[in-house]
Amino acid sequence: MGGDFGPRCIVPACIDSLAEFPSLRLILVGQAQIIEQLIAEHPAADRSRLLVHPASEVIAMDERPAQALRCKVDSSMRQALELVRSGAAQACVSAGNTGALMALSRYVLKTLPGIDRPAMISAVPTARGRCHLLDLGANVDCTAEHLYQFAVMGAVVAEAQGVPRPRVALLNVGTEDIKGNQQVRLAASLLQQAEALNYIGFVEGDGLYRGEADVVVCDGFVGNVVLKASEGLASMIAARLEALFRSGVRARLVGLLALPLLRRLSGELRPARHNGASFIGLQGIVVKSHGGAGPEGFRAAIGRALAEVGENLPQRLHGRLGQLLR
Amino acid sequence: MGGDFGPRCIVPACIDSLAEFPSLRLILVGQAQIIEQLIAEHPAADRSRLLVHPASEVIAMDERPAQALRCKVDSSMRQALELVRSGAAQACVSAGNTGALMALSRYVLKTLPGIDRPAMISAVPTARGRCHLLDLGANVDCTAEHLYQFAVMGAVVAEAQGVPRPRVALLNVGTEDIKGNQQVRLAASLLQQAEALNYIGFVEGDGLYRGEADVVVCDGFVGNVVLKASEGLASMIAARLEALFRSGVRARLVGLLALPLLRRLSGELRPARHNGASFIGLQGIVVKSHGGAGPEGFRAAIGRALAEVGENLPQRLHGRLGQLLR
Repeated sequence: MGGDFGPRCIVPACIDSLAEFPSLRLILVGQAQIIEQLIAEHPAADRSRLLVHPASEVIAMDERPAQALRCKVDSSMRQALELVRSGAAQACVSAGNTGALMALSRYVLKTLPGIDRPAMISAVPTARGRCHLLDLGANVDCTAEHLYQFAVMGAVVAEAQGVPRPRVALLNVGTEDIKGNQQVRLAASLLQQAEALNYIGFVEGDGLYRGEADVVVCDGFVGNVVLKASEGLASMIAARLEALFRSGVRARLVGLLALPLLRRLSGELRPARHNGASFIGLQGIVVKSHGGAGPEGFRAAIGRALAEVGENLPQRLHGRLGQLLR
Repeated sequence: MGGDFGPRCIVPACIDSLAEFPSLRLILVGQAQIIEQLIAEHPAADRSRLLVHPASEVIAMDERPAQALRCKVDSSMRQALELVRSGAAQACVSAGNTGALMALSRYVLKTLPGIDRPAMISAVPTARGRCHLLDLGANVDCTAEHLYQFAVMGAVVAEAQGVPRPRVALLNVGTEDIKGNQQVRLAASLLQQAEALNYIGFVEGDGLYRGEADVVVCDGFVGNVVLKASEGLASMIAARLEALFRSGVRARLVGLLALPLLRRLSGELRPARHNGASFIGLQGIVVKSHGGAGPEGFRAAIGRALAEVGENLPQRLHGRLGQLLR
């Protein structure tokens, strides 16, 4: 029911996903009448893999998480998470209120032993491949111990996605030991002692995109602002490129020729393709789609959740935490 | 003497700057023999506008600021700032150790009345023009009061550069009142009460590049990481574009045609063109050139300092602070 466009965007995205992923089965949780009407607009949809699970309440995008937790027992978000807890579903995907989704996820699913706070993680494209960045906004204030736990979780995610001995770094304002705030410096000393992790030290903002590390750890304030600023900058550059190739007859001609090449690049960088931040550290899989994502973006988030089911991420994390946490 | 390339980069940049700015007079502060040798390689240099002021010591790029402050009385950095304090120079430009430059600037020049901490500010290109972003790394931990003072200083800088009634915003992880950490929320309530400022609320990372505000305020950790990540992302996109236009015969042909257009774009975005972060809140003008900047970047930093002399920035700030600070 959530996101900037609600079920009008999510239902068609779900139906497309069923066609894209033959092993996928979806349970759409929310106000059944609205959802059924939207499904009815797609008579070719495979109803055998598409259930509707009713939930009467909706959490607003600007609702306080504590309010959502206390007062809305029958919200679509809560009911979807209950399906994961009970085992009726293997993952939850939501485009709704991020703070409420995090609070409800912690309350319903609980964190894994040894993890104080779940984190949001996503991969950004770099000059050398991809880098897993966390936290992306679930925790605006973090202690050194939280940053340490994020590093451990990030390493396990990177391993699960096929990176052997992932290089783990802390995001900082410089690479020298004396740089940064107290939390980051203290987290560095914790990580230096963690022999099971391949901790490589501090990276700066530009090092993130140079691909200096496979996992980059920061607090949720920094991660959220960096990710959104990057999306904003990439969009601005794309718009400038487009304007450039419309700025005269000759430019238009060159632009027509260059267009297929530019589309390939923009496809690689496009946020929708990389949509979906995972909540990790929970006893279950939860993927947050960007509230402003269109159907293509929401489909990408479903794909992310499906991949995590395949990677068996929570169980894998659980198994490694005892070894990696001090 | 500072920066990654030292006087070998800075001296030629200075000589070029004399040709570029006819009103400019430069005092090169540092180890006189090295500097004179480098000047001698440019016999056409206008020596009537180029003085050498000897200073025997050099502050290393990784030296602790406190150490630089206590032990190196005759460092080039310190002596350059003393020239500004005494009025012999109107501005100081350095590519050296940022932390040491900030500590020495505060010690030698002092802050303006009402300003607790100087900040680093620079303008980033946006979809609608430019946005002044601060702090860029001078203060990794900030109180709400510091953020408030940064907002006031940023507004005066934007005004000095011709923006009437600049829109001032706080960088945050969301735009709703409940979002962010305590410092940011408290700074918002201080700014809401400041009638002399055009405070427009929170902006997110993408809003920065969409041009939603003329001045964006954050702590130095966030600002530094955002600015460097943006530089890294822009470089990565530029490299991808270049690779794209080399990926085959047809692509090469299109690339040759598109090259002049792409060069125009990359010129607009290129960090060197926008090099030089200003230290503001001091009783004097100090511009920090990026340590890794080449001659073109250092020339841009000199140009920035010259512009600030024309804008009479410290005096202008002094005049407005009484009105704007609570």
